[in-house]
Amino acid sequence: MADNYKAEYALLADKLAGRGVDVNKVKARLKAQRIETPSWGFADSGTRFGPYKQPGSAVTIEEKIADAAQVHKFTGVAPTVAVHVLWDFPNGLADADALSDYAKSLGVAIGAINPNVFQDREYAFGSITNEDPAVRKMAVDHMLDSIEIGKKLGSNVLSLWFADGTDYPGQGDFRRRKAYAQEALKTVYNAMPADMRMLIEYKPFEPAFYHTDFADWGMSYVFARNCGPNAHVLVDLGHHFTGQNIEHIVSFLIDEERLGGFHFNNHKYADDDLTVGSINPYELFLIYNELVKAEDAPNANPPIAYMVDQAHVTKDKIDAMIQTIMHIQSAYAKAMCIDRKKLHDAQLAKDVVTAETCMQEAFNTDVEPLLKVTREEMGLDPDPLRAFRASGYWKKVSEERGFRAGAGLGA
Amino acid sequence: MADNYKAEYALLADKLAGRGVDVNKVKARLKAQRIETPSWGFADSGTRFGPYKQPGSAVTIEEKIADAAQVHKFTGVAPTVAVHVLWDFPNGLADADALSDYAKSLGVAIGAINPNVFQDREYAFGSITNEDPAVRKMAVDHMLDSIEIGKKLGSNVLSLWFADGTDYPGQGDFRRRKAYAQEALKTVYNAMPADMRMLIEYKPFEPAFYHTDFADWGMSYVFARNCGPNAHVLVDLGHHFTGQNIEHIVSFLIDEERLGGFHFNNHKYADDDLTVGSINPYELFLIYNELVKAEDAPNANPPIAYMVDQAHVTKDKIDAMIQTIMHIQSAYAKAMCIDRKKLHDAQLAKDVVTAETCMQEAFNTDVEPLLKVTREEMGLDPDPLRAFRASGYWKKVSEERGFRAGAGLGA
Amino acid sequence: MADNYKAEYALLADKLAGRGVDVNKVKARLKAQRIETPSWGFADSGTRFGPYKQPGSAVTIEEKIADAAQVHKFTGVAPTVAVHVLWDFPNGLADADALSDYAKSLGVAIGAINPNVFQDREYAFGSITNEDPAVRKMAVDHMLDSIEIGKKLGSNVLSLWFADGTDYPGQGDFRRRKAYAQEALKTVYNAMPADMRMLIEYKPFEPAFYHTDFADWGMSYVFARNCGPNAHVLVDLGHHFTGQNIEHIVSFLIDEERLGGFHFNNHKYADDDLTVGSINPYELFLIYNELVKAEDAPNANPPIAYMVDQAHVTKDKIDAMIQTIMHIQSAYAKAMCIDRKKLHDAQLAKDVVTAETCMQEAFNTDVEPLLKVTREEMGLDPDPLRAFRASGYWKKVSEERGFRAGAGLGA
Amino acid sequence: MADNYKAEYALLADKLAGRGVDVNKVKARLKAQRIETPSWGFADSGTRFGPYKQPGSAVTIEEKIADAAQVHKFTGVAPTVAVHVLWDFPNGLADADALSDYAKSLGVAIGAINPNVFQDREYAFGSITNEDPAVRKMAVDHMLDSIEIGKKLGSNVLSLWFADGTDYPGQGDFRRRKAYAQEALKTVYNAMPADMRMLIEYKPFEPAFYHTDFADWGMSYVFARNCGPNAHVLVDLGHHFTGQNIEHIVSFLIDEERLGGFHFNNHKYADDDLTVGSINPYELFLIYNELVKAEDAPNANPPIAYMVDQAHVTKDKIDAMIQTIMHIQSAYAKAMCIDRKKLHDAQLAKDVVTAETCMQEAFNTDVEPLLKVTREEMGLDPDPLRAFRASGYWKKVSEERGFRAGAGLGA
Repeated sequence: MADNYKAEYALLADKLAGRGVDVNKVKARLKAQRIETPSWGFADSGTRFGPYKQPGSAVTIEEKIADAAQVHKFTGVAPTVAVHVLWDFPNGLADADALSDYAKSLGVAIGAINPNVFQDREYAFGSITNEDPAVRKMAVDHMLDSIEIGKKLGSNVLSLWFADGTDYPGQGDFRRRKAYAQEALKTVYNAMPADMRMLIEYKPFEPAFYHTDFADWGMSYVFARNCGPNAHVLVDLGHHFTGQNIEHIVSFLIDEERLGGFHFNNHKYADDDLTVGSINPYELFLIYNELVKAEDAPNANPPIAYMVDQAHVTKDKIDAMIQTIMHIQSAYAKAMCIDRKKLHDAQLAKDVVTAETCMQEAFNTDVEPLLKVTREEMGLDPDPLRAFRASGYWKKVSEERGFRAGAGLGA
Repeated sequence: MADNYKAEYALLADKLAGRGVDVNKVKARLKAQRIETPSWGFADSGTRFGPYKQPGSAVTIEEKIADAAQVHKFTGVAPTVAVHVLWDFPNGLADADALSDYAKSLGVAIGAINPNVFQDREYAFGSITNEDPAVRKMAVDHMLDSIEIGKKLGSNVLSLWFADGTDYPGQGDFRRRKAYAQEALKTVYNAMPADMRMLIEYKPFEPAFYHTDFADWGMSYVFARNCGPNAHVLVDLGHHFTGQNIEHIVSFLIDEERLGGFHFNNHKYADDDLTVGSINPYELFLIYNELVKAEDAPNANPPIAYMVDQAHVTKDKIDAMIQTIMHIQSAYAKAMCIDRKKLHDAQLAKDVVTAETCMQEAFNTDVEPLLKVTREEMGLDPDPLRAFRASGYWKKVSEERGFRAGAGLGA
Repeated sequence: MADNYKAEYALLADKLAGRGVDVNKVKARLKAQRIETPSWGFADSGTRFGPYKQPGSAVTIEEKIADAAQVHKFTGVAPTVAVHVLWDFPNGLADADALSDYAKSLGVAIGAINPNVFQDREYAFGSITNEDPAVRKMAVDHMLDSIEIGKKLGSNVLSLWFADGTDYPGQGDFRRRKAYAQEALKTVYNAMPADMRMLIEYKPFEPAFYHTDFADWGMSYVFARNCGPNAHVLVDLGHHFTGQNIEHIVSFLIDEERLGGFHFNNHKYADDDLTVGSINPYELFLIYNELVKAEDAPNANPPIAYMVDQAHVTKDKIDAMIQTIMHIQSAYAKAMCIDRKKLHDAQLAKDVVTAETCMQEAFNTDVEPLLKVTREEMGLDPDPLRAFRASGYWKKVSEERGFRAGAGLGA
Repeated sequence: MADNYKAEYALLADKLAGRGVDVNKVKARLKAQRIETPSWGFADSGTRFGPYKQPGSAVTIEEKIADAAQVHKFTGVAPTVAVHVLWDFPNGLADADALSDYAKSLGVAIGAINPNVFQDREYAFGSITNEDPAVRKMAVDHMLDSIEIGKKLGSNVLSLWFADGTDYPGQGDFRRRKAYAQEALKTVYNAMPADMRMLIEYKPFEPAFYHTDFADWGMSYVFARNCGPNAHVLVDLGHHFTGQNIEHIVSFLIDEERLGGFHFNNHKYADDDLTVGSINPYELFLIYNELVKAEDAPNANPPIAYMVDQAHVTKDKIDAMIQTIMHIQSAYAKAMCIDRKKLHDAQLAKDVVTAETCMQEAFNTDVEPLLKVTREEMGLDPDPLRAFRASGYWKKVSEERGFRAGAGLGA
């Protein structure tokens, strides 16, 4: 049976025209989309109960970049790789020298710089909120080093996550810790070059289980605002209470011009780090709906860094990353298939059924034919996952690499 | 621009064949599907903060049945109406006499009988778990009366929900209440005719906020099992903690041959009673996946009663009910579009990416063309919502009825 | 058996001295504590499934104030009553004229003014975020009227809760609604006299079940900050996701000098409106720990309005309110029993077990003897609940009032 | 300042007599209480982000038993140690030979046997629900070996937790996996000697994030019932959704005579493994209330194994375990301080305020003097934590042991 996607595409283009959607503009925006993959997504990861190593997992930064380059090669929209300073640059700036050229030679570039101030034993009681000024300084120094690495590598995104928090009532003083955190952030902020942006992540719990110092978007927003105009909030989709309306938070931050970036993943319970769109694909579509609207009528919100942050233990790493990119493309494409005029009219008329139907109709649109045609126009295989599997790359590196120890979550 | 659904259908049929799916069997099963609407879904409903009455809301049981008949007229799959004894038969058996014929004359029939043992002031401290034996007897007597109404109306489903619970630690004794509940249920069970089935619902909270006597599926299961083979568990999709895996519970109950029926709705936070499939349509698809599998390889699980239980305050009632039926049809159709062979092979090969892709591929299938063709073959308009709106029925009854007081949640 | 609380008190005072706690200062602060009761807390309330009326429930504002005066009479710390404009002043300013004197004659005063912009049918699709400018104006006008009532009654707290939100994706446009809300709030803010403060409440869900326009403290904080220095955030303890660390939010808002007040209650699941301290008394203690610390070392945070917001359906209203005051006194007293020096040292030494023990030790302190002595010194009965019950007031009003219809949640 | 606990005790005994509580019976039950500590609780533990090793952590089973013996030495109620077969008996039965005598020489004994079927790489896709029959057999064989170890060591509790589950929809077939699980459990059950009991744990999520095969108490109950009368349910306090009423589940299982044991800990969000009673001490009291009632009026429920399961990363291990025992003693003592007659009368009279007050009054009772006197009568130091710290044991082993690699969660 032949794949009739071209015939399907023709019918789809006609249908979308009926919704006021220009399929060529949709394709153009899909081609311009950029999603950053994380170096640590190609390394072993784990659970609290064990690392579950895989043969084929990358250990060196060169291997991680090579794997990330495969994702870009087959999808065409993943040209940058976020790096984790501790795991990827154990020698700091010295390691960074050669790396930029290496990445370029594989067709990719280094993206966001992620300092790591949670894994060393010194941070067991916090990093920038530690009662010990020496530990706070150690954490700040690591971030200052990360800025230098970013300058060297041409990266202008400093992406900060703090595991800081407490496990028990009484263990820490919330307000003293808040003051420590603000002071450290300001120091780091002031050291950034003018074109660098600071992204401040938040997370309600884990690994700290009573309180976290950056517990929700509101706290990150206040910290960012107190730093200055180049500090923004990073939204990790898994860092919310179940049920919390993430698309609303996204729209609120855009409106306040403080949405700096995303860590894409999906969760059903806690910070599950599952493939984005795997548990509730409609939610991802609704988030993209806000992003499409912000693109349609931009305000002064900064450019948004779209980054993946997932930890796969049962999926092959590169397969999973390509699948992730495809889920994101699908959500973005569907969000562009909404009949905006009809939706707006229904909202004003308080016709809830019709308004909702506009959303469901777009979400239920099968955009696969459109994505396939777009990829072909980009010179890519219409089915990136099948093409990558057929390439034999994974089989080859699995055999070469085998099970190994590395640095990172799955160490 | 013409609606090209027939051309789309042709391409779809071909695509499904490639997945081993016989589109004619899919259509046959869609035609045989039966969904029950609730009489109270056509009446005013409300929130804790007020009823938000609508013009057009039904007040009498005759109006409710007439409205339900409209849903069946335009969808063809909703031929029965669940009734609430207290609200619909305030005079008990006497009211039931004429009703069966009336319903038949409109092309529908009475479905599940729902006793109401929560609204009278006597039940403020519980019905069958009340410390007062007179109140417990009052509740049991109402259920015995409901059985008689069911016999009269030819209904063989007795659907039980208990609002019983406590608000504060110490208010009640869990085990004494459990004994009261089991005794009452056995009394009712023993009074049922041989072909009647008892469905026992569960709910973790609301209106009781510390404990509910039927808190989860496990408790309903134990109560049912202690009654006998004709007592089964009723799954209301909104009666779970956020994140709880409902499709797993559904499959477990089927496997234990105790899944008696559903109350369809959707929720994001608590018992929100939103349109089924409106918050997480993928979850509804995954539930239908379990149902399709159970149809493909049946065990001794009883017939499943598919019932809607929603309370709309911002949507027009009949519009919302037709939309609900359409969401359910869509989920059912998509669940039949899974490539079962490929899925099974991937599961055995531990190829998680491919297994998940089988699910997402089916879910992303645009089944609208298939549903439209199916409806046409049933002699219906392919777009039931548009057709109903064009009929002028709602405009007419809204004008005739206006805002009125009634019995029920929106009283 | 005699009540040995005086002997117990002597031992307690000695024990507290050992923790560096001056029992006389504790008593002085307990005597100075002020808690506001809500007029609607004395009226019938209800659930989504029915109002569950009680004989004895107040209907008129005079009855509500009389009941509130009983609470103050027996506890000595509840001298003000929050009012709901719609329910308590159906004729607006005209009703307010005589009321102030009436309240004074009973020993109490009117506290926070609560506009009601959620119960009228016009607000079914929102108040200040409604797409209809006439409805938005209606809501703003009601709030402007409320300011006038406040001026008349000598109240300087305008307490705002908005039920605004949507039930379905697509129903509303988040950012357009945000702009509507901000504009309305600014209009109201600008009309306030210089000594009036605006409190902005937040709530994640209910009655809207997809999104609420004031979903969390961060949103209320941004709205308040955009209004000006006299707009603050109101924390209702039941308006959080389960598990969310409320004491952390409280400390953060104090540190940002935007904590305006509390609605005290407790919840296990959703917005359950149970008696404060009834489900997790340790959490209430931990909140009071932050408040005590803020009293010990004040910054420029505004005065905090401590208000009760509960809806009892199974407890006698005045009993429940006195019990509530007692729970709050207990939490406040315990929070003053912490060995601050030992706690501080343990925090700096990272001795988590000792730090936690300081908290648990204070929480496990039996402060009843201390509270009894304090009440005696205030000229009150040491057991307010027993004394109120012995007074015969409830029996009298229950018989006089009986079951009646009223305005409000239990109407 | 002297510790006046003897004077406090005298007043307390008098107060309790007034509630109908015989303080001598309370002391006798406290002396007879038995709590089992886990060998892995003395070893390094960790988070998903790193192990956070401590000097002083035990590595060998001998060290773990020596540490557990310290807990028993200072508390007198922790005479047994649960063991993890994989970590503690890497050579299986061979290791077990000498161990029993060693434990006895330190005054303790081996308690529950915990097979480990989750850490080996083979279990990445499940143990007894794995699609590979060889892996299922491997898991069953390990459990059969564990039974032999139990027989050898005189332990009659086989405590089973399965990490089995899936991360993505489609990854597994729920019902096929259920059949695998039931078959494996029956095989193991049939191999148990007549006096051995099987405890089946449940957990809603983690490490599997879409579904777990033993997701809730209902599933464990069904599996246990299908095995036979010696299979029971194990309740781990952290394995529930936030808000779920655990004391209700406990009472339900007791009533059905299937409550086999506990894993004590506390959580605020997910499976946080914090010290029991540290987040919501009232909940622990309410659970003990059910246990005390079951002791007062026993049915045929099996003996309940009270076991601790916590993973401390910021507390010193032995300190934390002694603190844990003290929290449990406190909850148990308080639950015996309820005025049962008054509570019963209030329940029957529907006097909710009085019923709740009975609970709060008991919970607010300061039982420290009672516990201190009880410990003295047992020949122990009244303050076990202070006494242990004074002993110098921890300082000594911390210096001797230092940071080391071990087997287990913190490996």
